[in-house]
Formats: sequence, structure tokens, C-alpha cells
Amino acid sequence: MTSALVRPLTIAIDAMGGDRAPQIVIDGMNRALGSLKNARFLLFGRSDEVAPMVERCKKLRSRVELVHACDVIGSADRPSTALRAGRNSSMRAAIDAVAAGRADGVVSAGNTGALMAMAKYVFKTLPGVDRPAIASVFPSLRGRTVLLDLGANVICSAENLVQFAVMGEVFARNVLGLENPSVGILNVGEEDLKGNDAVKKAAAILQQSNLAMRFHGFVEGDDIAMGTVDVVVTDGFTGNVALKTAEGTARLYTHFLKRALISSPLARVGALLAAPALRAMRARFDPRIYDGAMFLGLNGICVKSHGGTDAFGFSNAIRVAAEMVTDGVNEGIKQDFATLSAGSGPDPKLAAG
Amino acid sequence: MTSALVRPLTIAIDAMGGDRAPQIVIDGMNRALGSLKNARFLLFGRSDEVAPMVERCKKLRSRVELVHACDVIGSADRPSTALRAGRNSSMRAAIDAVAAGRADGVVSAGNTGALMAMAKYVFKTLPGVDRPAIASVFPSLRGRTVLLDLGANVICSAENLVQFAVMGEVFARNVLGLENPSVGILNVGEEDLKGNDAVKKAAAILQQSNLAMRFHGFVEGDDIAMGTVDVVVTDGFTGNVALKTAEGTARLYTHFLKRALISSPLARVGALLAAPALRAMRARFDPRIYDGAMFLGLNGICVKSHGGTDAFGFSNAIRVAAEMVTDGVNEGIKQDFATLSAGSGPDPKLAAG
Repeated sequence: MTSALVRPLTIAIDAMGGDRAPQIVIDGMNRALGSLKNARFLLFGRSDEVAPMVERCKKLRSRVELVHACDVIGSADRPSTALRAGRNSSMRAAIDAVAAGRADGVVSAGNTGALMAMAKYVFKTLPGVDRPAIASVFPSLRGRTVLLDLGANVICSAENLVQFAVMGEVFARNVLGLENPSVGILNVGEEDLKGNDAVKKAAAILQQSNLAMRFHGFVEGDDIAMGTVDVVVTDGFTGNVALKTAEGTARLYTHFLKRALISSPLARVGALLAAPALRAMRARFDPRIYDGAMFLGLNGICVKSHGGTDAFGFSNAIRVAAEMVTDGVNEGIKQDFATLSAGSGPDPKLAAG
Repeated sequence: MTSALVRPLTIAIDAMGGDRAPQIVIDGMNRALGSLKNARFLLFGRSDEVAPMVERCKKLRSRVELVHACDVIGSADRPSTALRAGRNSSMRAAIDAVAAGRADGVVSAGNTGALMAMAKYVFKTLPGVDRPAIASVFPSLRGRTVLLDLGANVICSAENLVQFAVMGEVFARNVLGLENPSVGILNVGEEDLKGNDAVKKAAAILQQSNLAMRFHGFVEGDDIAMGTVDVVVTDGFTGNVALKTAEGTARLYTHFLKRALISSPLARVGALLAAPALRAMRARFDPRIYDGAMFLGLNGICVKSHGGTDAFGFSNAIRVAAEMVTDGVNEGIKQDFATLSAGSGPDPKLAAG
């Protein structure tokens, strides 16, 4: 992952996406410069609004090329509307820059559905991938867990789930640097007879596949936080509910903890003494650290930052995009899909594709 | 709910279900006596094993009738096997006692699938209910949230979801004592165009129904902990994943909190001072308080205690069963289903059924 520091890298940025854009986008880019020594940015947005903000950041100025885009995709716009009417939007222009080879990847904190629809339309999927998935990284007892799909596909076939498993494993291997990541399919029990047809069939396919994947079998909802496996695969409906349920539970816990620590004079003193430790703990659950949802399976790197993000979160999303580029996620996915499509037969010609 | 204290009440108990049965079952019953002054128990299990345990509890002795049942349903038994071969089991005998009118409700910490299959076979569903659901109560920012289904039905139609909404609302009204509980359907977004066909159609039916239900529309995973609505409706696959994801996240948070509070001498002193406040907070997340998953929609009261429960958890499951009986959950469900089947037409004769 250190290669990100030396290889020249261009990231296309949608300046207008997100609740607090464009200011937090500019601040996030400025912040990202610290860890991405060789990065430069192609920034798309309303130049009258954005240019003065860039102008104020001395360090950033020389690393940014601002390109005017007159339109902005709204957070409530339908994906189909964005596709049809958003050709002059900052989001679309940033995606187009990657497709044209002028940038290595794109980051936006804008409308997720619109971003996915446009990225899919412009980039197309990688060979063998039927549907792209949204993936993200979660804190766990053992470190980090990759979860996908988080909402790109409300209904998934067994084949979709198998493809998500392959893409998630490549990400865990190439970007998280895990040597032989384990993969599980989310289910309502660990026994083979539980679950719907899609998860049962997907598990059977993975058990028999010719991939060198460490397939664990079924896992349950609590295994995400426990870190039972490195990659948890599910459909976009279940994954989105799991993601948001985990966020809600963490928020509830934080709320009760804060209230407990001001509930008595003694507790207040205790909280004061334990403050540095508690801050360090809360930092582990800080959703901004995990900002940067990856669109996996597209022939182009696209990362979605949280709509309500700030400069710190957005800088992390930029870092994720940079890592996906430099760690060769898409090359890895292409390779594994070639192996998969070569089937169980040992045909080296096909497998090497 | 005070009626539970005066009206005579008989609860059938499966002595053999749960990881630490029968001891924690006996201890749980003993503990439950404190709040259920007029309850008596019909206890089913291996009398040679169970009788000495009961004998040791002075207060309990006079309130228990022990009935010998030679077989025990294993935690790994398939529901179909349990149905076929479990006729002489403690679980089945306890269910049969309710069906025969010798008890008002049954509580077991045994195999969930087997308990549901047997209860469904023996009790049958209430008029108009196609499928029973498993419901439970969660802590939330606003108090408590009812979530169902938690795993009885992996795949659900719109009609199933509508029926779950009705049953959950009755439970929130009759047992939680909420005057006009709000109901939401779990989805991946709040907009009408999101989600699968089942949730979209269920929402449309509830919006147009003749029930006096406060239907909120769609909610997302974080709304469970936020308490946005009082009742959250979903299919058994998603509900089970949400339940376990919340449990896993809470456990992870507790783990990090504990570690933070021993991470430095200062933090240790702080933790000591804040200990009573932290204990009170942890008690709010104690899963034993929420023990007692309700099987809703059956013509008989059945409550499942957690397999890994202890005496405190089991006593809470008994309390839940007692409340379901005395608060007339099934009468409420029957009434609402009669209204529902009367359609939108204002036919008082049918609606009164």
C-alpha cells in the first residue's frame, strides 16, 4: 500500500456532492494531501463557488485542476432522472474523466443511487460480473470485516452472491492486505438447511468452486462484529439493514454511555479521569474512519463518501479510492473471474485469461 | 397489567429446554414467583431429575405440579423430526397442556424451530393469520421497539407483512400499554420507490386499510434503535439478521469499553468512580431483560426463552407469557383480523366479529 505514496495518481472529485459540499470536499482534499504525497485532483463543480475555496488552500492549489460543471445532482433525484438529465453535472463529469483515462478513480459524497447508475452506465461491469456491489469495512473484535452488498441490489440470485464473494475476497486480499481472507454468507443460522434458495445455492457453488478461496460457510448477524470471517456476503436489502442497524445500535450505546457518565457527581469525575481512554474507544467506532463505500465490479474505480460526511470522512474516502487504484483491485477481480469462468476444468489457457 | 397479580394463572413450562436446563428453569420459575403472585406452574420433564430441584425450593413447591415426560427435544433436532418423534417430549407435553385448557400459556428455552413447528401444529393459527411470527422487544432511544418477524418465515409475502403489522401493533397496545402505537416497515430507504415488491405492496395495503393503525411508512435499520416507530415489521430473514447484528454490535461496544477502562491507571480509577453509573447503563442493554420471544398469531400463547438464558432471563420470559395472557393479546389480534377481513366497507356486523 506504500506504492500510493510514490506513483503519480489522479483522483476525480465531485465537488458538489454531500450535505455540506463543496466546502467539506475541498477541506477533505486538503486533508488527504498529507498521506497521498503524489496525488493530484481533477475537481468538478461550479467554478464560481468552488474556485475561491480552492484559492484559500495554499498547499492544495498547485495539486488541483478545477473544471467547471454547471449542474448538480440533487440528493432526492431518481437514478433514472440523473442518468437522463445529469449529463452536465459535476458527478457525471468526474466519472467521465475516469472513463477517458484522465483520472484513476472518482470520489463523490452525492446521491448513491445516481452515482451507481451513472458509474455503471459509463464504466460498464468487469468481464463476468453481472452486477456491481457496494462494499464497506466495519470494525470487529478481530480487526476489520468487509460487508457487501450494502444496497446496490435489493434482490440477488445465487450467482450474484457468488460474484460478490469473489470481489469482496479480492478487496480484502489486495487492499486490506490479508493473506488468505475467509468468506462467509450471511444467513439466519449456520446449518446447511437454513435460509432461502439463493444463499443455499451460493454456498454450494462456492464449496465446489475452483477458486483458492477460504470459504467458511454461513455466518449470522453477530459474526460481522465478532469478525468470524473477513468478508461477509449478502444481498443489498439485508446488507443495508445490517449496516444501519449496527450504526443505530452504536449510536444508542454512545447515547446511554454519555448519559451514564453525567448521571452523578462521582460519575462525572470518573468520566473526566477516563476521558482519554473513552475518546480512544469512541474513535474506534467513528464512522468517518470507515467512510468510503466501494463500488466493486465496475470497470473503473468509484468510491462513495457518506452524504453527511465532513472533511475527515471525505479524506478517508479519497484514501480508499487511492488504495483501490494502487493495490490493483480491478486487476485482481478480473483474474479471479477468469478463473471462475474457466470452471472446475483445469484449462490453463482460460484460467490465465 | 396488574390483573396478572390477582387472576389465577397457569403457565406450562418445558423443564428440559435450554443449554443449562433444567436447573435454570427451576430457578427462573422461583424468581418469577415474586412478581406473579397468583401464578402456578405445570412443569414437564424427567421427574427423577427435576423433582429434587423443585423439592429444594420451598416457596415454589406448593405452586408447581410436576408431570413426567420421558423425551427431550435436542437443540440440533430438525423441526420435522421433533414433530414426528417428539410426541412424548417435555416441550410437546407443555404445548398440549395449553391446547387442552389445563394451562394458559407455555414457556420453553428449547429448540426454536421445533417449538414453532409443534406450537403451530397443536395450536393452529388464529382466524385470518396465514403465518405466525416471532416478535421481541428492543431497547431504543424512546423506550422500547417491537420487532417482528425474527426468523419464523424466511420469505414473506406482502400479506404476511401486513398481518405481522397487525399482530405487532396489538402487542404494543395491549402488553406495552401504548395508546396508539406507530408501525413501520423495514426497508433500504424511506422513499416509496425503494425496496422489494413485498414491502412496497404491504405499505400500500396498510396505507389504504380500514384499521385504526398509525402506519408511519418505511423505516431503516437505524430506526430500530432510534425508536422512530413503536413496531418495526420485516421478513424473518432480515429480522433475524438485524437482531443478531444489533446484539453483535452491542457486544463489540461493551468489549471496547471494558478494554478502554483498564487501559491506564487513570482510566481504572475513573471506571471505579463511574462504576455504579456504568452498571446501570449496561443493565439497559442486558439481553436477559428482553428475554421472551413471542410467537404471535397462534391460537395459544407460546413464549421462547433464549437457549443460553439463565434464571433471570427465564423469569422474564415467564413474565412475558403471563402478560400476553392477562393483557388479552390473542383476543386483540382476533378482533383486528376481523376488522381487516371486513375490508374497507363499513360493515359493523363483520367488523364486530
